[in-house]
Amino acid sequence: MPLSSSYEGQECNVAATLEVVGERWSLLIVRSVMLGAHRFEDLRARLGIATNVLQTRLTSLVEAEVLERLPYQERPPRFEYRLTEKGLALWPTIAALSRWGDTYVNTIPPLIFRHRECGGEVDDHRICARCGERLSADGVFAVAGPGASENHPMRRSGPRDLGS
Amino acid sequence: MPLSSSYEGQECNVAATLEVVGERWSLLIVRSVMLGAHRFEDLRARLGIATNVLQTRLTSLVEAEVLERLPYQERPPRFEYRLTEKGLALWPTIAALSRWGDTYVNTIPPLIFRHRECGGEVDDHRICARCGERLSADGVFAVAGPGASENHPMRRSGPRDLGS
Repeated sequence: MPLSSSYEGQECNVAATLEVVGERWSLLIVRSVMLGAHRFEDLRARLGIATNVLQTRLTSLVEAEVLERLPYQERPPRFEYRLTEKGLALWPTIAALSRWGDTYVNTIPPLIFRHRECGGEVDDHRICARCGERLSADGVFAVAGPGASENHPMRRSGPRDLGS
Repeated sequence: MPLSSSYEGQECNVAATLEVVGERWSLLIVRSVMLGAHRFEDLRARLGIATNVLQTRLTSLVEAEVLERLPYQERPPRFEYRLTEKGLALWPTIAALSRWGDTYVNTIPPLIFRHRECGGEVDDHRICARCGERLSADGVFAVAGPGASENHPMRRSGPRDLGS
């Protein structure tokens, strides 16, 4: 559903951002690609999403330059999805959603972000709790937290640099 | 559409948070209440949203304890919507969405967050760029930015403490 053309709708960058990634699946796709799922079948399995819905969302995220579709095999041709810089810049939004859930929904965190350089935990302001560095996505890795079961994708994959 | 019951769906706090506020209107309602719109008619006018959709979303946000519905008049009885602590804790998500829009969508910011105490601008890490204090919503006010037209609600209302 397109947003209204009211002044607030047009001039608000919360609304403008939600125009690009506000559909719930879009942010979950961005999250999964950020955590290392790059191929259609892997995304479909992780998200439990219908094939046609996933294809539509991926196409619109590529059009919005949040994702890139890149070849990883020539014969037969196969493609995977990678975050652009613009897509990786959604990490603060993903981190804020995740932190709110840690506080108010599932209070044993299933996912933890850590500073690549020193291993310190990323705090609520996206600062390393150990060394104090201000972090962006390219300085961070994700790892399963104490709330992740044995079957959680991050427990199976092990720690992952964001966007890798 | 409910999310799948896959492990990742259940154990991810991005997904869990989007279960509560992932529907686009919900986050825009939270944003508008955060910026000072508390009454049904004001929300309806600002959002340009159908009455029944707004009512449904407000009810579910009250059920999720993101909003409270409080009386502001006895005869006839009238109610307004206020953010709970849990709702105000969505500010980091709103701030991250807004910042991403400032960077990639409308690069002349329509909305700026400032530190109540010293007036310094809130940076990308929700830290005061002037005095260095780490900020939460209750230390911040919003003001129309250079990208806001004369008709932007924040220009009409003037600076607003978040959640006030």
